[in-house]
Amino acid sequence: MFFEGSEKKAQIIINVDKLSLLNDIDDIFWDALVNSCGAKVLSSMTNTNCKALLLSESSLFIWHNKLLIITCGTSQLVKAIEFFLDSYPIDIVQQISYQRKNEYFSHAQPSCFSQDVKTLRQYISGKAYRFGDLDSHHNYLFHQDNNFKANINDKSYEIVAYHISESASKMLTDPHLTALRIRSMFHIEELFPHFDFDDHVFHPFGYSLNGIHNGRFFTIHITPQAESSYISVSANFDLINLLPQLITTLAPKTIDILTSNELNFEKKILNKLPEQFICTSLVKESLSIGEEIVFSSYSQNAQHCSDAINLKMNNVVCSL
Amino acid sequence: MFFEGSEKKAQIIINVDKLSLLNDIDDIFWDALVNSCGAKVLSSMTNTNCKALLLSESSLFIWHNKLLIITCGTSQLVKAIEFFLDSYPIDIVQQISYQRKNEYFSHAQPSCFSQDVKTLRQYISGKAYRFGDLDSHHNYLFHQDNNFKANINDKSYEIVAYHISESASKMLTDPHLTALRIRSMFHIEELFPHFDFDDHVFHPFGYSLNGIHNGRFFTIHITPQAESSYISVSANFDLINLLPQLITTLAPKTIDILTSNELNFEKKILNKLPEQFICTSLVKESLSIGEEIVFSSYSQNAQHCSDAINLKMNNVVCSL
Repeated sequence: MFFEGSEKKAQIIINVDKLSLLNDIDDIFWDALVNSCGAKVLSSMTNTNCKALLLSESSLFIWHNKLLIITCGTSQLVKAIEFFLDSYPIDIVQQISYQRKNEYFSHAQPSCFSQDVKTLRQYISGKAYRFGDLDSHHNYLFHQDNNFKANINDKSYEIVAYHISESASKMLTDPHLTALRIRSMFHIEELFPHFDFDDHVFHPFGYSLNGIHNGRFFTIHITPQAESSYISVSANFDLINLLPQLITTLAPKTIDILTSNELNFEKKILNKLPEQFICTSLVKESLSIGEEIVFSSYSQNAQHCSDAINLKMNNVVCSL
Repeated sequence: MFFEGSEKKAQIIINVDKLSLLNDIDDIFWDALVNSCGAKVLSSMTNTNCKALLLSESSLFIWHNKLLIITCGTSQLVKAIEFFLDSYPIDIVQQISYQRKNEYFSHAQPSCFSQDVKTLRQYISGKAYRFGDLDSHHNYLFHQDNNFKANINDKSYEIVAYHISESASKMLTDPHLTALRIRSMFHIEELFPHFDFDDHVFHPFGYSLNGIHNGRFFTIHITPQAESSYISVSANFDLINLLPQLITTLAPKTIDILTSNELNFEKKILNKLPEQFICTSLVKESLSIGEEIVFSSYSQNAQHCSDAINLKMNNVVCSL
């Protein structure tokens, strides 16, 4: 069974003098926003700085001045941005960014990035970029082009592991798998002390976890199916030290890292990846809003010869 | 300007006792077959063993008992197979194979591989495979599953170079480029002595060359645009020795090699690629018809940091 783990991500920053997203907006609105893009709210937790909603397709985080929504599968995240912009006056919005990873099966998506950008440009003007080559892992990024200035201390980190080992995939697709078992497999409690957690094991496969502590968040999404495995960890604090643990647990064939405002990326990444990983992509861009983006991708040397995949018709997803 | 260089390839082997494709079928038929998939015949050359047609989208080769058609762009090659099968009784057909590479923009294609297979299964039963991971370079292969036995001496070789150097791309997109200049750039005459050539420079960009000598063929197709460069060389004789020359001329970031019935692939490839290339994929399969397929992909270490691609709306092709 195939599931598109690859995520889309939208961030909306607003003028907190005009509205607090956390205090002034009720859950009915967030439910409707999440529904608008084809996902559902499963559960939530809140502290005074941040609310974290676990979705049927990933996560939504809400701070006083900011929301971050991440969705996977065939959800159409751009519709959640439209929903927000149709609900609140545009002058409360300071900055919108929209990011989309290359999908395993772009065919099966209801829209492509250029259509999403066309939709967004009905509301705001902005710039669009691609980080990474078309025919390998890449990220599309669109951001509103206005006089907003990013705070260099607002950092973000994403690590994605693809093609995890057979044993990791087997463990993570075990029908008796529990959230507790996964938390312990990834040493969540030790690695993220003081955090509150909310997690969900999906049936037949998949796992999502949100963690918050004051204004800090991290989130893990697991699509464990061997043919299209995809494990992402995102946070607004440094995750680079987590790499060795992730590699030990998952033994992925490929790793992507995307950071925002991490100015020492290359220095920090040194010695964090075993020798057999080579960097196949390293792309940097200084956005006009003062945000520094780095995207890098690492592939493991194919040390063993593998068999071709024998395709049943349902192995190949195609929505045409 | 974007052009999809990635190719589809179809081979039909017939019972030569019943028909000679080379002698018994006139050019009007081949014209119509080529038109059926959305391409046009530009020119042709013939010897007693083989006819080579240069197409607006790649090439068609015809032997007494076999045809091989390669097309790129948004041509729908599966329609050429249908055209053949609608024109001749199925009992002259001994074996059909159909191969399709991952595209730069699969969105822009009129059909996906699973739809193509569905079309072919209306005529023949067969097996479908994928060589390589979904999210990196891969080849789909479908072959008729019957009692045909492949001749291990019928070998085929394909080398594809992606993301050629800026200087190679610049040279190959020069508006004053001539066929002679490209032949000399690739040392065609020295590397392929005794061969007859037929080549064509496309406007604004692109180049195709067919070469034949007795029953031997080779063909080169060049899509030189920096954003989506794709240079393929295919032949029914060993091309592996050509690798160092190709790498020197093009300095590509990625190389794919696909061979059929080359039993010493790994030994032959040794020392043919510079150190900075690592093998990211190595997949072998023995088909039930006795054909041995090897697919491998090599990526160069990203030694330099690059800027993100600033996307104008027309940079992103999407047919949805």
